[in-house]
Amino acid sequence: MIIDLRSDTITKPSENMLEAMMQAKVGDDVFREDETVNQLEKKIAKMFGKDQALFFPSGTMANQTALKLHTNTGDQVICDKYAHIYNYESGGASFNSGVSCKLIDGDRGMFTAKQVEEAINPEAYYYSKTSLVEIENTTNKGGGACWDFDEILKIKGVCNENNLGFHLDGARLWNTLVSKNETTEQYGEVFDTISICLSKGLGCPVGSVLVGDSKIMEDALRIRKIFGGNMRQAGYLAAAGLYALDNNMDRLKEDHIKANEIGEVMERLSFIKSVEPIETNIVIFEVNNDVDEKLFVEQLANKDIHIISMGGGKLRMVTHLDYTNVMHEKLIKELKSL
Amino acid sequence: MIIDLRSDTITKPSENMLEAMMQAKVGDDVFREDETVNQLEKKIAKMFGKDQALFFPSGTMANQTALKLHTNTGDQVICDKYAHIYNYESGGASFNSGVSCKLIDGDRGMFTAKQVEEAINPEAYYYSKTSLVEIENTTNKGGGACWDFDEILKIKGVCNENNLGFHLDGARLWNTLVSKNETTEQYGEVFDTISICLSKGLGCPVGSVLVGDSKIMEDALRIRKIFGGNMRQAGYLAAAGLYALDNNMDRLKEDHIKANEIGEVMERLSFIKSVEPIETNIVIFEVNNDVDEKLFVEQLANKDIHIISMGGGKLRMVTHLDYTNVMHEKLIKELKSL
Amino acid sequence: MIIDLRSDTITKPSENMLEAMMQAKVGDDVFREDETVNQLEKKIAKMFGKDQALFFPSGTMANQTALKLHTNTGDQVICDKYAHIYNYESGGASFNSGVSCKLIDGDRGMFTAKQVEEAINPEAYYYSKTSLVEIENTTNKGGGACWDFDEILKIKGVCNENNLGFHLDGARLWNTLVSKNETTEQYGEVFDTISICLSKGLGCPVGSVLVGDSKIMEDALRIRKIFGGNMRQAGYLAAAGLYALDNNMDRLKEDHIKANEIGEVMERLSFIKSVEPIETNIVIFEVNNDVDEKLFVEQLANKDIHIISMGGGKLRMVTHLDYTNVMHEKLIKELKSL
Amino acid sequence: MIIDLRSDTITKPSENMLEAMMQAKVGDDVFREDETVNQLEKKIAKMFGKDQALFFPSGTMANQTALKLHTNTGDQVICDKYAHIYNYESGGASFNSGVSCKLIDGDRGMFTAKQVEEAINPEAYYYSKTSLVEIENTTNKGGGACWDFDEILKIKGVCNENNLGFHLDGARLWNTLVSKNETTEQYGEVFDTISICLSKGLGCPVGSVLVGDSKIMEDALRIRKIFGGNMRQAGYLAAAGLYALDNNMDRLKEDHIKANEIGEVMERLSFIKSVEPIETNIVIFEVNNDVDEKLFVEQLANKDIHIISMGGGKLRMVTHLDYTNVMHEKLIKELKSL
Repeated sequence: MIIDLRSDTITKPSENMLEAMMQAKVGDDVFREDETVNQLEKKIAKMFGKDQALFFPSGTMANQTALKLHTNTGDQVICDKYAHIYNYESGGASFNSGVSCKLIDGDRGMFTAKQVEEAINPEAYYYSKTSLVEIENTTNKGGGACWDFDEILKIKGVCNENNLGFHLDGARLWNTLVSKNETTEQYGEVFDTISICLSKGLGCPVGSVLVGDSKIMEDALRIRKIFGGNMRQAGYLAAAGLYALDNNMDRLKEDHIKANEIGEVMERLSFIKSVEPIETNIVIFEVNNDVDEKLFVEQLANKDIHIISMGGGKLRMVTHLDYTNVMHEKLIKELKSL
Repeated sequence: MIIDLRSDTITKPSENMLEAMMQAKVGDDVFREDETVNQLEKKIAKMFGKDQALFFPSGTMANQTALKLHTNTGDQVICDKYAHIYNYESGGASFNSGVSCKLIDGDRGMFTAKQVEEAINPEAYYYSKTSLVEIENTTNKGGGACWDFDEILKIKGVCNENNLGFHLDGARLWNTLVSKNETTEQYGEVFDTISICLSKGLGCPVGSVLVGDSKIMEDALRIRKIFGGNMRQAGYLAAAGLYALDNNMDRLKEDHIKANEIGEVMERLSFIKSVEPIETNIVIFEVNNDVDEKLFVEQLANKDIHIISMGGGKLRMVTHLDYTNVMHEKLIKELKSL
Repeated sequence: MIIDLRSDTITKPSENMLEAMMQAKVGDDVFREDETVNQLEKKIAKMFGKDQALFFPSGTMANQTALKLHTNTGDQVICDKYAHIYNYESGGASFNSGVSCKLIDGDRGMFTAKQVEEAINPEAYYYSKTSLVEIENTTNKGGGACWDFDEILKIKGVCNENNLGFHLDGARLWNTLVSKNETTEQYGEVFDTISICLSKGLGCPVGSVLVGDSKIMEDALRIRKIFGGNMRQAGYLAAAGLYALDNNMDRLKEDHIKANEIGEVMERLSFIKSVEPIETNIVIFEVNNDVDEKLFVEQLANKDIHIISMGGGKLRMVTHLDYTNVMHEKLIKELKSL
Repeated sequence: MIIDLRSDTITKPSENMLEAMMQAKVGDDVFREDETVNQLEKKIAKMFGKDQALFFPSGTMANQTALKLHTNTGDQVICDKYAHIYNYESGGASFNSGVSCKLIDGDRGMFTAKQVEEAINPEAYYYSKTSLVEIENTTNKGGGACWDFDEILKIKGVCNENNLGFHLDGARLWNTLVSKNETTEQYGEVFDTISICLSKGLGCPVGSVLVGDSKIMEDALRIRKIFGGNMRQAGYLAAAGLYALDNNMDRLKEDHIKANEIGEVMERLSFIKSVEPIETNIVIFEVNNDVDEKLFVEQLANKDIHIISMGGGKLRMVTHLDYTNVMHEKLIKELKSL
């Protein structure tokens, strides 16, 4: 039994999901004739109360498309120093949209409306023009932390006053919603665009969706085509998404409970320096200075337990759909015995 | 019975292909752990005698990645005025790579080594730097025409003399190989990079592959990530590719025969002005000046026969895996009765 | 005595112009405090009836800024196959703005409204979006030809119907105005942006100006800064411009007369294949096939007469402010004696 | 008498410099035939022991060209959070080169080799590729601070180990050299490219120069052309540079002495919170929290003393060639009387 906690992206479709995929009615999505893709896009747009949704082969592409929709070349995007768009998209923001990031030194990937205000460039022509604020919820590098919705509303106020777009990287938004009893409508009302992921927590093999109103989404299809994200019979992937939305949402709670239990055990281990607060399915921790981080990861791997380093002394475990109760028991036992 | 000849991209997987897809062993391809993707990439690299292959969600992305690998911002790419990369990729060459195209006024999408030589910019710094020659085989807008391999070799000579990269958009390369009894190895030897499509003739739902040697492919993975083409459990799509390579290649001949037969009928129709030479699975024709092109397409549609206009008075039919013998018989009958 | 007819850009300031330069009241133009620059910008804006004008170190930068102002990354610009922005700006349109050019096969650099209409891409998302029409008047590679103003008006109509911007590369607009008795106001009314050159015909050492109304010019200052075109005490250069506008405009006629006289002589020379129609100060001609073009240029150079090849068998002579009557007499004599 | 300490860029040429400009032998630099430009480029290349130098209309363009020469689209540049290229070039790094900045939280604009090492991205393809380290000497926003040359050497070591380019924004390098008795050769040996400014301390109206060896400078001319930085008879500007190198270098000491004296007075003023260490010609200070910064600047302006705010509560005074002894005496008196 291999326990893989490196990421919630490693899940494989269940038999039922696979069955749903096989049954999908498909068509050529380049002609916009894939029924299942169309159905998924319509469903998700409606969930967020937005005019349009567009299916993407990855969250990176959904985010990169949003950046382009909101900005002009040379503009600046305000985001956290932990932001996925800055750190883990290969420099795509500058490559694809020619924009730079103004990084806020936030708390576990989250910042305040006041910090946003201070990060906006003055209007003089020798400054880059600030045109977008981007946040991640939950925050990945911030350990799955959930934003305070009131702060989000305040940031929205700053965006409105300063004519800035507001994009949500919702790669793990489902975890927030479940953890905090919030709704998609709530988020749809505040953000101009939202990217959500069907893979991670929901367990689909492939796919993300970008939602927004018609005006901002006007060029989304063209930009997706420019990146080469226009797939043909993509309905097989979309079908998994439809299945997951119906079947895999509520059970995210279980991932959160397990993550919490892991955290509790970790905190009592003598060689663990600290465990970050656990709000959803991500456990980020540090080992003591006298413990070799790399060696520690290897030792776990030898016990068929796989976790990853996030750099800077931080290690990460992520619970997910394929992390079963049996695995959980074994992991807890192994951790206690370390 | 609907006869859809708009494109060979509209095919849907057969039951056997679907079965192969659902049996696929998958993994997270972002970690490069999807066995089926890895197997497909390895197989195709080997077919072309190249070091590496990379799976893409579309041919557009495979081409756009190749353009970036071969060029520096501001460079110029020599291609035919019919080139897909210039005409049908939404301006991606300039958007993604900041390059321009020097269009050659070729014959059905094909040109000569001499024309390439003439299209190379002088070295003076106020000219854009020519760095790549790109051809399409078969040519899409050129009516599925196949290049003379000797001319390709001559162009390769010009590339070598002038230090130019040489990329093949092989969206329908399989049709060429089958039609002209040529081999993948032959093409692998001449071109620095080749994009091939698993969808069109081969009938897969999604996917293209870019092949090249390690040096040129060094940044391919990063560029695919930048575009957002990095999918998770992509093995379901790759499995279709593996199935198709084994099962759907030889039968391309049947598509060619059918296209030919359609062409023969068309040529005898009084209201048809001309039919372009048919070498593979594409039939491009023009109606007489007194025939309303749009109306003609609509009338066929009313008979459940779907074709498309390519602009400039040209109409296109494409035969494919889902265009059955029964459909063919019906089409021939209908055409004759027009 | 060296007769340099390679370009009208090689002129050096007269003593009076130099005197005007050195008397200029200057300031730091980055703070927008250079009186002379401000005066020149105001004067030229007024001449064209536009809200704003901006001084640039080169016509290339004025054009490149205009391209960025009018387009979004990935868009397409309609221009002639001879266009300076496509041929002689080092690929800048794609480098700086990420746009491609749709080249019209015009007549001596000029095309018709009908050709523009045909060059506009359909709206489908897989086409690049057409957003700008650009023309050059006079046409450089077209041999200094002047556009028919009525055709320009018709093209403006097409731009309006299709929501396209309309930019004039007026590197040699002064020559048109003088040759055809047209006015700056006339051009200001039709074009959204116009770049004019103070160097070429007017004889200034450095400088071009872009004019347009406030809305389109909103980001011009920022884009000039991004390219690095923001100079400090640029008033010395602007002063030359002010001097030239007052003193060197009318005399362009003389350049035209001389060019015409050169053309007449050339047409009678047995080894000259053809001379293109001469409307302003540019003479483009071809030598007979049995004459070695390169050798011919060298032989003239040995006689201290310098002309340049434009590629494709075309040779060019350009008359200008520093091409005196004495030189003209000598040239005519030398030509006749060839 | 107006005392303008906003920047050392506001200086106007002396009579002698103007005289040198007027006497300049010029030519068309687009043909590379401007003798004075050529002489200046040769002289500066030699001063730094580099193969080539290129004249630019601004330091911004020299820096932006260097960024492009060192990077590929999508790469990352390591620089200080105060860096001019990040803060004051209108987002040009992303616009022109498609690169992002990894900002180091340095000390007055300076950082350590260890900080550089930590800022280099891992090699995995989902990170942006680190390809360049850029520093500014003296640091502008850092208050004219001079780098410890030993630290620069250590950073060079890190660059060599990690295959990174090393660019120096030497907008005020002359001030460092004079202040620390360092040499151009010393800097030429360590850096791959250096941009130096002829305006600021040296008092020329316009111009910067980029130096580097032939390999890295190969495309510099083309990139300058792409930005539109190719001027015609630029020799008038270059002549001022030649004059300044011979005549205005040593006197930078006087600017430094004056800046020091200003600082000493400021430190004793009750309403001044702090004055940053003064190493060259820049005085950066903060007023007490109960003093309205904007009002303070206005009050000085009413006394014909002009300074600027740098944001974040910091105010700046810069001494320069046009800041005379008389002005200095008056300023000191006025400051004491506040």
